[in-house]
Parts: sequence; structure tokens; C-alpha cells
Amino acid sequence: MVRGAPAIGVSAAFGLALAAQQSKAKTLPELMRDLDSAFKVLQATRPTAVNLFWALQRVMGKGKRAKTLEEAKRVVLNEALKMAQEDIETNRKIGAHGLKLFRDGDMVLTHCNAGSLATVAYGTALGVIRAARDSGKRLGVIATETRPVMQGSRLTAFELLHDGIDVSLITDTAVGHMMAIGAVNHVIVGADRVLRTGHVFNKIGTYQVAILASKHNVPFYVAAPLSTFDFESTPEDVIIEDRSVDEVVKVGKRRIAPKGVRVFNPAFDMTPPELITGIITEKGVLNPPFNKNLKSLLG
Amino acid sequence: MVRGAPAIGVSAAFGLALAAQQSKAKTLPELMRDLDSAFKVLQATRPTAVNLFWALQRVMGKGKRAKTLEEAKRVVLNEALKMAQEDIETNRKIGAHGLKLFRDGDMVLTHCNAGSLATVAYGTALGVIRAARDSGKRLGVIATETRPVMQGSRLTAFELLHDGIDVSLITDTAVGHMMAIGAVNHVIVGADRVLRTGHVFNKIGTYQVAILASKHNVPFYVAAPLSTFDFESTPEDVIIEDRSVDEVVKVGKRRIAPKGVRVFNPAFDMTPPELITGIITEKGVLNPPFNKNLKSLLG
Repeated sequence: MVRGAPAIGVSAAFGLALAAQQSKAKTLPELMRDLDSAFKVLQATRPTAVNLFWALQRVMGKGKRAKTLEEAKRVVLNEALKMAQEDIETNRKIGAHGLKLFRDGDMVLTHCNAGSLATVAYGTALGVIRAARDSGKRLGVIATETRPVMQGSRLTAFELLHDGIDVSLITDTAVGHMMAIGAVNHVIVGADRVLRTGHVFNKIGTYQVAILASKHNVPFYVAAPLSTFDFESTPEDVIIEDRSVDEVVKVGKRRIAPKGVRVFNPAFDMTPPELITGIITEKGVLNPPFNKNLKSLLG
Repeated sequence: MVRGAPAIGVSAAFGLALAAQQSKAKTLPELMRDLDSAFKVLQATRPTAVNLFWALQRVMGKGKRAKTLEEAKRVVLNEALKMAQEDIETNRKIGAHGLKLFRDGDMVLTHCNAGSLATVAYGTALGVIRAARDSGKRLGVIATETRPVMQGSRLTAFELLHDGIDVSLITDTAVGHMMAIGAVNHVIVGADRVLRTGHVFNKIGTYQVAILASKHNVPFYVAAPLSTFDFESTPEDVIIEDRSVDEVVKVGKRRIAPKGVRVFNPAFDMTPPELITGIITEKGVLNPPFNKNLKSLLG
């Protein structure tokens, strides 16, 4: 029920906190067993967004250091609350770093939703757009509708309209044409997982938007907190979630494709570093080569 | 109500034939005035598919050479009937030339619908796939759903399933990913207008599929009869039809985007010749440079 990598992470943290509050354990080891089984359930919910694993490990780490049952319950909840607060602050920092990349009047294309509705609040990619607007830059946003789940039309268009930011909706088929006619001069997207090599896993369609941006000399930025970085995996390690055929063949309960047709519905794709102009994090903007510059950024 | 460039052309021809049959004209000049106003109405229905203008001019040319009212009514109807028959023969010839480009086991991606449901019968791009199948080659087809009007899921998937041809449906966002994982080794699409320079106007999204094919070294073919060629216009002359916002914000009567959002909904885009491997016509396969080879093809 939860989507958006940072929102998934914080929700998982609260999942552990809820498990701790609801546990009937009488001793610390019993509580840790309950937390462990909640950990496993939560960990298996989604395979791609790395924030899920990061958040679970961070909260669990706190719990494991507790000396008493009461302390464990308290630190697990406090850590989840802290992560929710941090997520907003992180997004504001991403916004502050990212807004420098945009100029008054820019037309910015975004894919999927990396906004308030993908985080605790403010957003990553849309956080940058909010920060730019708040700094006095007038940006126009072009939102792709983002089939199959329509996060662009249902979420991005909704939250930008709500905030009074200029937004236009296009189908995913119109990205190339809009770039060819010069209607787009920046792309900014979020991420579900960033590898240390700069490979970015994000909503299906991100990869082709990046190719189109590169072809039209449009800068392509990714906005993501460091909690979205996976410092261990290689591209081959990452599992791309295949989702239900119904996402493609139905809108609500209405069938829009013939019965019996085979469907491929990968939910994410991988954008290689050579297509990415920069990755905007809470510690600053990472430029290529990402592997090298990530080390300096982290100090 | 009619879509698909060849189907639009032949329908317009029958539109003139109907106008001739229904005319209450008592003299040949009166009939020609009636035909002239039908011509203008039909000509204004769609701006992009060139077959419309080609068909109207061809039928009108026949009518204008008639010596009597009865002869004019007869030749106009006969020309429309002849064009319907020719369209099927033309598609079969396109299929016969095109099938040589495919090998047993190829995975062929197509965008929009250039099939039976876009022509009188057999199809252009899907005609090639039918011809390849009939020649014993087993092709797998990947159909993009083709937002906003969903010609891929509603028409292409339907007609290929109906014919027992292996077809899989993907969202328009998954094209790049499917090419990156090696699941596509040919692209074939139809066309609404082909310029003598080889610029191809076709359903929105075609241009970006061509860029993605080029990036992944996947051959990109256009299948189109010579009636789709426009020997006069330059790219700047061609009007790209903007269609209703409702196509993007509604599915049936169900609203899928927030009220008040601005929408850009161009129905077509232009693919430049450098992205096109070949154009399959009823007279053979045109290879680049298209301008030069078109002259030889036409003799």
C-alpha cells in the first residue's frame, strides 16, 4: 500500500515500532524474536527500493543494543520517529542543493512521483522544484503520466497543482517529441536504489527518459537521499520487481486489453551512470565519476 | 471514427462515392459542386495522414474526367471500390517484401496499430508479420499499449491474438528496458506520412521508440504504401494534430488525472531518416539515402 522509496523506508521503521508496541513478550529475548519475525515480513514486501532494508536494519540495530524490554520498545519507536523527522530535513537539504541547478523559466520534466507523496513530506525531486519555487525561480513542470500505475497523473500532477506550481501532463509516449520541439530543458527524477557506481534503479520508464534527455542534450538529474544508496550491490544483484498483469490490462475494474494476452510488467529499470548529469543528495550534488566523488562527499 | 492512414484514405474515397450516390444533382456541374463540398468536408477531418488527401484527389480526378452525370457517379464509386481492393493487394506486397528482413525466432516490437484495423485488411506493419508467419517464420511480437488511445492493447493485441500470433503487451514506459535486456531485435511500425527525405510522421511515441532502437542497435523499419508518401512537403509543412485533453485525463468516463491540470496531447511525431533502417513499400524495401533510392524505386 506504500510507494516511494523514502516513504517505504520510514513506513517499515514504523512497522517495527508497531510490532514492538503490540508484542506480548515478557522478556527482552522474546521481544527480539517478535521484532525479528516482523523484520522478515517487512523485508519481503518489496525487493527493489533499498530504503526498506536500510530502515529495517537501522531500527533493528537500535533495538539490539537495548538492555531491557522497556528500553527496546522505547528506542525502536524513537528511532522511527527520528527517521520520519530526518526524512523531511533531508529532503529540504536536497532541495537547497538542487535549486542551484535550475534557472528562472526552466521547463523541467519529471517521471513518476518523487514528491510529498513518496516521502514523509516535501519530496526529493519535487522537493528540489519546491525549493526552487520558494527561492523565487519560476519553473514549469512537465509530468509524464507514468504507466502503468499513473503516479504522474494521479500524484505528481495532484500535488503540484495543490501547491500552485505550474504543471502540465503528457503521456509517456510524448517525451521524445516534447524534447525535440525544445519544450524541456531539464529532467529530474527520484530513485529507488542508487549503486556506488552511479547506476540508478527507478520507476520503469526512467531509463528511456534518460536516453531521450541525453539524445537532446537535456541535463538529467536524480534526487535521492543517501539512504537510497546501496554501497554493496552490483547491477546484477538488484532484483527488479515484476508486478501484476492487472496493472496493465485494467483501469479500476475496467478491462482495457483483450483477455489472454501475455503481459510483461517490470516495475523498475536501471539507468547507467553515463546518462546521468548529477545526483542530488542531502550532502551536495554528486557529479561524475560518481564512484570517486561519492567517497569525497561522504568524507 | 476512422483511424489508420490507409483506412482513412479508403474511407474518404467511399465518402466521396456516398456523396455522389446521395446527390440530388440533375446535371454534371451540379454533381461536381456536391462532390466538391464533400471533398472539403472530408479533407478537413484530419490534418496529418496524407492518404486522406491522396485518396480524395485520386477519386476527384476520376470524377472530373467524366462526360456525363451517370458516368461521374459510376467512376467515383468504382474508383473507391478499386482502391479498397488495391489496399489489400498493396499490403500483401509489403508483406512479401518485408518478410525477408525477419528470421525465425525474431522478437519484433511494434507501436500503435498498423494492422487489419488500420487498413482495409491484412495491415502494413502487421501485414509483414502475417506474411513472415505464413512463410513459416515464428515471430514473437511485443506490442506497446500506445497511450493515450491504447491502439496497442485494444487493437494490435486483439488482432494478433485473434490470428494466433504470439503477442505480449508492455506499457510505453518499458520499451527501453525491454531493449536493454535483449528482448527485442526488430522494430516495425506503420506511418501516417512519409516525406521524400525519409522523415516519417506516425503515432506519438514512434520517434522515441526509434531513438531507443538506434541506441540499442535494433533495426527500425517502417511499413507504408506509396499512398502514404508526400512528395511535396518539407518537415515544417506538416501539421501535427493536437487531440482532446480527455484522451489523457479519462479512461472511458472515469477521470484519472486531477481537474484543472494542463495537458499536451500531440497525436503524432516525426522520426528523422537517420533513425530509420528501411521503409518497406509495395515496390520493395527503401534503404537510405531515401531521397535518392526513392527515385530509383519509382523508376
